[in-house]
Amino acid sequence: MSDSTIKANWIAVDWGTSNMRAWAMSASGTVLAEACSDKGMGQLSQDQFEGVLLDVVGDWIAGPTTIVACGMVGSRQGWVEAPYAAVPCPTIPDGFAHAVTRDAALSVHVIPGIKQMNPADVMRGEETQISGFLARNPNWDGVICLPGTHTKWAHISAQEVVSFQTFMTGELFATIAEQTVLQHSIAVDGWDKDAFLAGLDTALARPERLASRLFSLRAEGLLHGLDGASARARLSGLLIGAELAGSKPYWLGQQIAVIGDSGLSRLYVDALATQGAPATQVNATSVTLAGLTAAYQRLKG
Amino acid sequence: MSDSTIKANWIAVDWGTSNMRAWAMSASGTVLAEACSDKGMGQLSQDQFEGVLLDVVGDWIAGPTTIVACGMVGSRQGWVEAPYAAVPCPTIPDGFAHAVTRDAALSVHVIPGIKQMNPADVMRGEETQISGFLARNPNWDGVICLPGTHTKWAHISAQEVVSFQTFMTGELFATIAEQTVLQHSIAVDGWDKDAFLAGLDTALARPERLASRLFSLRAEGLLHGLDGASARARLSGLLIGAELAGSKPYWLGQQIAVIGDSGLSRLYVDALATQGAPATQVNATSVTLAGLTAAYQRLKG
Repeated sequence: MSDSTIKANWIAVDWGTSNMRAWAMSASGTVLAEACSDKGMGQLSQDQFEGVLLDVVGDWIAGPTTIVACGMVGSRQGWVEAPYAAVPCPTIPDGFAHAVTRDAALSVHVIPGIKQMNPADVMRGEETQISGFLARNPNWDGVICLPGTHTKWAHISAQEVVSFQTFMTGELFATIAEQTVLQHSIAVDGWDKDAFLAGLDTALARPERLASRLFSLRAEGLLHGLDGASARARLSGLLIGAELAGSKPYWLGQQIAVIGDSGLSRLYVDALATQGAPATQVNATSVTLAGLTAAYQRLKG
Repeated sequence: MSDSTIKANWIAVDWGTSNMRAWAMSASGTVLAEACSDKGMGQLSQDQFEGVLLDVVGDWIAGPTTIVACGMVGSRQGWVEAPYAAVPCPTIPDGFAHAVTRDAALSVHVIPGIKQMNPADVMRGEETQISGFLARNPNWDGVICLPGTHTKWAHISAQEVVSFQTFMTGELFATIAEQTVLQHSIAVDGWDKDAFLAGLDTALARPERLASRLFSLRAEGLLHGLDGASARARLSGLLIGAELAGSKPYWLGQQIAVIGDSGLSRLYVDALATQGAPATQVNATSVTLAGLTAAYQRLKG
């Protein structure tokens, strides 16, 4: 529950598959309070969203309140489907979806995701982060990398998303480390920067050998006593290296910003640096909030 | 249980992680009977192997009997560790391990696996299939592909394994299809040959984009209604295509034999054919048995 003395002018919500975060905003756009819940979209049926929202932000509400939400809450399996806008398009596209609520004081608007028809690709949530970054960096052209479960690379020009490409790198890392024979070779945590850089080099040089390099982690554990933390870091290097090889047409010679979890973003910035590609690391939460604020301002006209 | 009227001269056993198969052999090397069990190495502790073996082959035994086994039964977690021989080496290396048994009539010999120190790699079971293939094709030089959970490519010259390379293609296919977001897009069965060939072409042309092409399967399901059977076949094509790109130094310009499950082997033969590389498909069971027979002859020799 949130602080009952705070009353929000409007409320910003980032509602993903696994979690939701909410911010009570003042009329001038400052954060009065924040709260979060582990009730992500993935575990909710359509009629449960309003109850979860009120559990988290109910105390902030005094009278009619606008709520602006981004993320998987707008997917077909979410609260209300906010259809994808097609590239090229502004980062906050038209077509906010309006979620039906039992509580008449709530006016819930969900930001559309963005789709690309060919090659087929979708994003939902990242468009708001990009929008927040551009709100803070007007007229910025270049490429934005958003590392995560499904890492996105987006080409930005003239305040629009021109094209983008998703790599399943984060999900592959987790799945390979936990669900394959490599689970016996890879530690749950720990790190080895040299092993990360070695994996990166290997994959950038011969990305087509990925499935073979993966098995090497197992064989090196058996034959050379490769330790679990080094295996973990090398796996990360191999997968990020293969991604950088595949995304090279995006980042080569471009201005680059990396938006995401700070530890993971640092790996991408370090990896790009080895390729002579300097990148700026950007705090994800702050641009998410800036994007939700830009959407609110757009809504209010 | 096996036919109690059959008495074996010796017994051949292929004992892998998930299953075991046994054959009652005559003195002249013909198969008198066969039996199998789902009690693979993966679910047995060291003291359980003898009991399982006797459950399967006990009726074939009348007096002292030699048993020759290959596969994960010889791993550190198996019945008795049969240390790896290092390449280059004969396909049936020296150093059979002898499993201790309570039943004095049993003389159990386990065939060593093969290791490669750099790049680190291991095989256990496949060496016996290669040996059986070479017993039937003396003086054959070339490359043998053994598709499966961990597909092996082995360079054979002068009856020896010169080098080999393992790709985790089969395990990646199963894990990606069942444990990632793609589980919503990929059917449990069904096939689409054109989609397989399209995936193959895509991955052979740009193997470094694999993690991105995987996400495309999800996005094409959402945006273009890609059906689950086509997605399944395309995933298989993408992974086998990436493997063929990575294993090209092995197979290019070589005589090729493919040993494995008939459906999966057919995919590899078809895939290699698109690259102008004709390959011979070989029945796995028959060469496993030929390899176990060669090992028995060597033991008695």
